[in-house]
Amino acid sequence: MRKGTTEKDMIKYDHGLLIEESDQVAEEYPLTIVLNDEEFATMVCTPMHLEELVIGFLASEGAIRTIADVDSISIDEERGFAYITTNVTFEKVDTTRRWIGSCCGKSRAFYFQNDAKIAKTVMDEMKIEPEFCLTLMEAFQKKADMFKKTGGVHQAAIASTQGVEIVFNDIGRHNALDKLYGYLLKQHLSRKHKIIIFSGRISSEVLLKVSKMGIGFLLSKSAPTDLALKLAEDLNITAVGFVRGKRMNIYTHAKRLAIHQE
Amino acid sequence: MRKGTTEKDMIKYDHGLLIEESDQVAEEYPLTIVLNDEEFATMVCTPMHLEELVIGFLASEGAIRTIADVDSISIDEERGFAYITTNVTFEKVDTTRRWIGSCCGKSRAFYFQNDAKIAKTVMDEMKIEPEFCLTLMEAFQKKADMFKKTGGVHQAAIASTQGVEIVFNDIGRHNALDKLYGYLLKQHLSRKHKIIIFSGRISSEVLLKVSKMGIGFLLSKSAPTDLALKLAEDLNITAVGFVRGKRMNIYTHAKRLAIHQE
Repeated sequence: MRKGTTEKDMIKYDHGLLIEESDQVAEEYPLTIVLNDEEFATMVCTPMHLEELVIGFLASEGAIRTIADVDSISIDEERGFAYITTNVTFEKVDTTRRWIGSCCGKSRAFYFQNDAKIAKTVMDEMKIEPEFCLTLMEAFQKKADMFKKTGGVHQAAIASTQGVEIVFNDIGRHNALDKLYGYLLKQHLSRKHKIIIFSGRISSEVLLKVSKMGIGFLLSKSAPTDLALKLAEDLNITAVGFVRGKRMNIYTHAKRLAIHQE
Repeated sequence: MRKGTTEKDMIKYDHGLLIEESDQVAEEYPLTIVLNDEEFATMVCTPMHLEELVIGFLASEGAIRTIADVDSISIDEERGFAYITTNVTFEKVDTTRRWIGSCCGKSRAFYFQNDAKIAKTVMDEMKIEPEFCLTLMEAFQKKADMFKKTGGVHQAAIASTQGVEIVFNDIGRHNALDKLYGYLLKQHLSRKHKIIIFSGRISSEVLLKVSKMGIGFLLSKSAPTDLALKLAEDLNITAVGFVRGKRMNIYTHAKRLAIHQE
């Protein structure tokens, strides 16, 4: 079992002094996914929770919908290959190809074919207290061991009204979210009244992954982009950014926050 | 001319108080590159310096080698399309396909076919004082206007022994570097004795882009990954991370730092 970090000798320069030291560095591990005997993609990732990563990635790409679609999965950790067989047929589309379309006369802010096919409006409604968002972020950051060690990974978590439930780390922002998605599917977890907490920025890709998971609440330590906020508006996701200390910015669908007007 | 940021209404939560405010958000703009009448790729980016971005991206993908390979370039900013024609033929390879090979009995740490073809060992040798690295990072951070406004962009710069020469911003880490690459090519700039300064982590992809540019010195505010450091070792690049205040970590090829032993 790998631990996602490794030791690296380096020279520290500190106020004019040079010191030979050892540093903890995040591991970057190449994983090739072979889907039904065909090479599907190679990604670089943090080599932990690879099964969750593969399942989440394939769901996010639209190659599977539920865990029942998966017949077998085996991982050759030594060589960096994941072999997965499914009982569904999937035609891989060029994920870099632009999608230009409109629906019911309304053009949605999608730019890739795949996303237009899979992203869905989130139906889940819930209400949480603003203060609870800050509590969740604090708990989330207390679990950031790998980041504290290496400074080089992203962290994503699923929380409920009970608190933070599960946390994953990865050098890739999107991989961290795919691991959550894979976990959700593997554990047959309900997406009802769930919250995603994320260390990275809210880009359109991040927002789309949250929508594919069917979760309506996203808390992030960082900034959003304008396109992500348009998508959040459209897909009924509450996007909250810059959750830091006693402050946060509520960008979309504030209705999910129990705001008591005086 | 777009400015890369936009205004967004939001609700700020601050120590229990709710305030309606307007926030500066980074723009995320889809750009489709049409190469010799064929759709090549769609990327999301910060809509500034698009010509540099397209040229740098195509060079990084191996579709062009120098600016002389480009016959024409025109950008439809309104619709988000870049049309480029070249006088070279290029067969697009699947960039997610794994490269498994070895050279002269030595297996190099490449994982993608394209990189194995284009990345090269940097031949440039130079020496700078450690203190000068700190000075460069300080100057680099003073130029981070867009980051200060939005918290949502990455910054990359080219510097020489004279100081910071040119700075680009982008919501995409890799785009910021591609803009530098495009600028280098457009301006016929020498890569000799140049330094790249970067706000983001040193991942293998970042390192490979630096090697493709032929620049031997990389300064980053952030952490490296182990794979990036293996590549830096192999491709003769000096990788310095965590450059903050009076401190930095010299990970590879410290020979380019003028270290005066007492």
